[in-house]
Amino acid sequence: MAARIEFFCEFASPYGYLAATRIDALAARHGRALAFRPVLLGPIFRRTGAIPLVEMPIKGDYVARDVARAARAIGEPLGWPAGQPTTGLYAARGFYALLPDDPAAARALYMACYRRYWVEAIESASAGAVAEMAETLELDGAKLLAAMGSDAVKQRVRDANDAALAKGVFGSPFVIVDGEPFWGFDRFGEVERWLETGGW
Amino acid sequence: MAARIEFFCEFASPYGYLAATRIDALAARHGRALAFRPVLLGPIFRRTGAIPLVEMPIKGDYVARDVARAARAIGEPLGWPAGQPTTGLYAARGFYALLPDDPAAARALYMACYRRYWVEAIESASAGAVAEMAETLELDGAKLLAAMGSDAVKQRVRDANDAALAKGVFGSPFVIVDGEPFWGFDRFGEVERWLETGGW
Repeated sequence: MAARIEFFCEFASPYGYLAATRIDALAARHGRALAFRPVLLGPIFRRTGAIPLVEMPIKGDYVARDVARAARAIGEPLGWPAGQPTTGLYAARGFYALLPDDPAAARALYMACYRRYWVEAIESASAGAVAEMAETLELDGAKLLAAMGSDAVKQRVRDANDAALAKGVFGSPFVIVDGEPFWGFDRFGEVERWLETGGW
Repeated sequence: MAARIEFFCEFASPYGYLAATRIDALAARHGRALAFRPVLLGPIFRRTGAIPLVEMPIKGDYVARDVARAARAIGEPLGWPAGQPTTGLYAARGFYALLPDDPAAARALYMACYRRYWVEAIESASAGAVAEMAETLELDGAKLLAAMGSDAVKQRVRDANDAALAKGVFGSPFVIVDGEPFWGFDRFGEVERWLETGGW
């Protein structure tokens, strides 16, 4: 069986959000399973020396324009939250709390928070907001909140981040296909071509 | 008559080089004239706080791989000069020395240096190397060398860089179509679509 496509995204990354809305269909078109893995770029940026795009003079303005243009190009609604950039810490903890027992619920929760933030521009990144979102998905919010505060889940988030960094992940979105790394939603065309042809 | 496409590139940028090999055909397909404008990212990066990609841990390794993949994807030969990143100062001075009187020669000289550096991986960025390259194009190398050292040409390079920065140029390649900015060779598909549709 062909290897899973590995997909990494950061909560505060609008390109990551747009890519997350498209990665399932992409994987399905090529008969591949998907490993969806949220990452926290904060600790990763401290290793690479990168600066969050939107915080850079001149470039930040361009990025806001480019993101809106990319969203319109694929017909995906996108807001621009006032508090940007936010932290993806609690959405990631919620995700990794659920992942071992119920990957589908983990993904649904993360995407619901992601969508609420990037489409409705509503704050969805606090622990309380993530637990509330879990309730709307018929998950146990109180139990999730407790898990999100546990050392075991905190460690799971750190381990996932370290694993991503060890694979060379330094930005969002980031896709790995059969060991080949692709950074950016703008590489999805190349990802498709790589899957079709086996590489060039 | 439709406005010119404005194209900006930095000598040390391999994505800029790849884009420069394709921008004329792109403009021609859409019946647009082209304003080809080399820039120096050093002074621009000091304004935006950016770090040269190849100098960043982890990300730099990815970029080298991505550039080679992008070159293979379009069938364009590409080397990887040992001294990377270099300075585009003298190639830019040679270009802007020739531009007012002979834009075609300016472009030919810059592209010849660009190609020598990025394809043959031969040092072509010093004043002497630029003047030698001019001789191979049947231009007066000694005259060009003198012009490259003149205050007038130095100022012309600074003015061109300031003009680019004023238009929001912060990276290489950078294309402006009817006021719409596109950063990166990976945006050429969108540039084409923008030219075809008038925007979205």
